[in-house]
Amino acid sequence: MAKTTTHIALVCPGGPITRELAEKTGEITAARFGESVKLHFHQQCFLSAGHFAGTDAQRSAAFLEVSNDPIYDAVWFARGGYGAGNLDDGIFAQLTDAARKKIFLGYSDAGVLLARLYGQGVGWPVHGPMPLDLSRDDGENAVARALAYLVHRDTDTLEAAAKSGKQTVAFNITLLAHMVGAPWMPDLSGHIIMLEDIGEYLYRIDRAMFTIFANPGVKNAAGIMLGRINNIPENDRPFGQTEEEIAKHWCAKTGVSYLGRADIGHDAANKIVPFGGYKASGETS
Amino acid sequence: MAKTTTHIALVCPGGPITRELAEKTGEITAARFGESVKLHFHQQCFLSAGHFAGTDAQRSAAFLEVSNDPIYDAVWFARGGYGAGNLDDGIFAQLTDAARKKIFLGYSDAGVLLARLYGQGVGWPVHGPMPLDLSRDDGENAVARALAYLVHRDTDTLEAAAKSGKQTVAFNITLLAHMVGAPWMPDLSGHIIMLEDIGEYLYRIDRAMFTIFANPGVKNAAGIMLGRINNIPENDRPFGQTEEEIAKHWCAKTGVSYLGRADIGHDAANKIVPFGGYKASGETS
Repeated sequence: MAKTTTHIALVCPGGPITRELAEKTGEITAARFGESVKLHFHQQCFLSAGHFAGTDAQRSAAFLEVSNDPIYDAVWFARGGYGAGNLDDGIFAQLTDAARKKIFLGYSDAGVLLARLYGQGVGWPVHGPMPLDLSRDDGENAVARALAYLVHRDTDTLEAAAKSGKQTVAFNITLLAHMVGAPWMPDLSGHIIMLEDIGEYLYRIDRAMFTIFANPGVKNAAGIMLGRINNIPENDRPFGQTEEEIAKHWCAKTGVSYLGRADIGHDAANKIVPFGGYKASGETS
Repeated sequence: MAKTTTHIALVCPGGPITRELAEKTGEITAARFGESVKLHFHQQCFLSAGHFAGTDAQRSAAFLEVSNDPIYDAVWFARGGYGAGNLDDGIFAQLTDAARKKIFLGYSDAGVLLARLYGQGVGWPVHGPMPLDLSRDDGENAVARALAYLVHRDTDTLEAAAKSGKQTVAFNITLLAHMVGAPWMPDLSGHIIMLEDIGEYLYRIDRAMFTIFANPGVKNAAGIMLGRINNIPENDRPFGQTEEEIAKHWCAKTGVSYLGRADIGHDAANKIVPFGGYKASGETS
C-alpha cells in the first residue's frame, strides 16, 4: 500500500521561530493538504541561546535526530538567520541511510547545511522557501511553493534552469563566500551556480565575488546565474557598477560563463533549486 | 657610503586619497625626518573609478611599478577601503628581486596584498598604520609610528608579541575570512595570528571565525590573539557573547590556543606586526 502521509520535520539550525509562526505554517499546510501532510516542529525551533535557537550542541542534536529518524520524508529548515555553520563537525559522520533518503529544504544561512550534505552525497539538498518567509509580503505563496515541492515534487515550483535536469546549485552570496574555503566545500565544477543576496552593500557583494571566484570549482562551473540582490543599502559613494555588472565582471575576469538572471532571492518569488538538478519523485540521489 | 635617504612609494590598492592628505603626510614626514625620508605618492592614489582608486588595471600597474622600482625602499599603502583583492592575478608572477628587498606596509583591505606577498615569499609584509589614519583622533602618532618602523625598524613601534621574533601575522577578521579559500593563501601553521575588525555586527565576527577556523593552517597555528573590534553596531537582539568570548569559543572548538589580547586595531594605537616576525634592519627575509 502506498504511504498516504508525508511527514516533514522542522528544525532551526540558526535563529529561532515563534510558536505563532509554527501554528500559522501548520494552518496553511492543513488548509492545502488536509491530513496527507504532517509537520513536526522540533522543540529546538523555539529555544533561545543569545543569537541562536539553542546552543550549538542543542541545534546539532536536533538536526541529527530528525535527519536520522526514518519516519520523516523531509527536513525543512524553518528559518535561516545565522548559525548553521556552527553545528558540531562530528554530526556529519553520524548521518545514516535514513538521512540519505530525505529532502533537506531551505536557503540563506541554511545553505551551509545544503552545501555540506551535497558535498557528502547525503539526501537531496534543495534551495527554496522556509516558514519564516510568511513574514514577507505574499509569503504564503512562498511557503505553498516549498510544500508543493516537498509533497509532490511539483515541477511548476522549479526555477526555469533547474527544470532541465542540469546540475544546479543555489546560494546566498555572502554565505557562499564564507564556505568556499572549508574542507567540506563541494566541488561545483560543471554546475550552474545561482547566487542571491539581501541587505549587502555592493562593495561587499563584489568582495564576496572575489572570494567565490578564487575557488577552483567555481572557476570550472558551467556558469553563473544572478538571482535578486534585494535591499542594497546606499554607500557613502556610488560603487559604479550594478550587481549584474559585478557578476559579469568577475565572470569575464575568471573565464566563467555568465548565464543571465535566476528567479531566486530573499523574497516570496524565490523558486525551487534542487542541488544537482531536478529528479522526479522515487529516484534516489 | 651609507645611503642617506629612505625612499617610500605610496599607492592605493583600494580606495583613493585626497591631495590634501598626501600633503599633510608629507609635512609630518618632513617635520620628523627632514631630508632623510622622501615620500613618493604615485598619481594613481588620486584616481577615481567608482568605488576604487582607478580601475583594476590602473591599480595593478601602479602597485607593480613601485614594487619593482629599485629606488624605493618600501611600499606604503596609503589607505585600505576596498579593492586590493581585485588586482590582476598576473602581476604577482611579475614581481622582481627589487620587490623582494622591500617592506610593504598597511592593514585592513591592504592585508590581502600582505598575505599574497607573504605566501609568495616576496619582501617584508608588515601590518601597521597608513596615511589615512590621519583622519582619526591622534592619527599623527599612528603615522609617526609607521614611519619610525619604515625608516629605523624602531622596535618601540612593535606589538609586544611581535617583538620576540616569533612568527606573527595580523589581519582584519572580515578580510581574512574572504581570503582563506584562495589558492595563494599562505599557510599560517605555527604562527601567532592577531585579528582585529571595525564596524561589524558580532554575528558577522562569529561567522567570519567559522570561516577562518575551517582553514587547515589556522587550525595548526601557534595561537590566536584578539586585537580590538571597534564600533560594533547594535543588532536587533544581543548576540550573547562578547568578542573575546567568540574568539575563545572558536579556539576551544577547534583546539587552537587563545593567547590573549593584541594591541592592534582600526585606531591610532594600532601597533606594528611584521609578518613572520621582527627582523632587524639589514637581514633579508
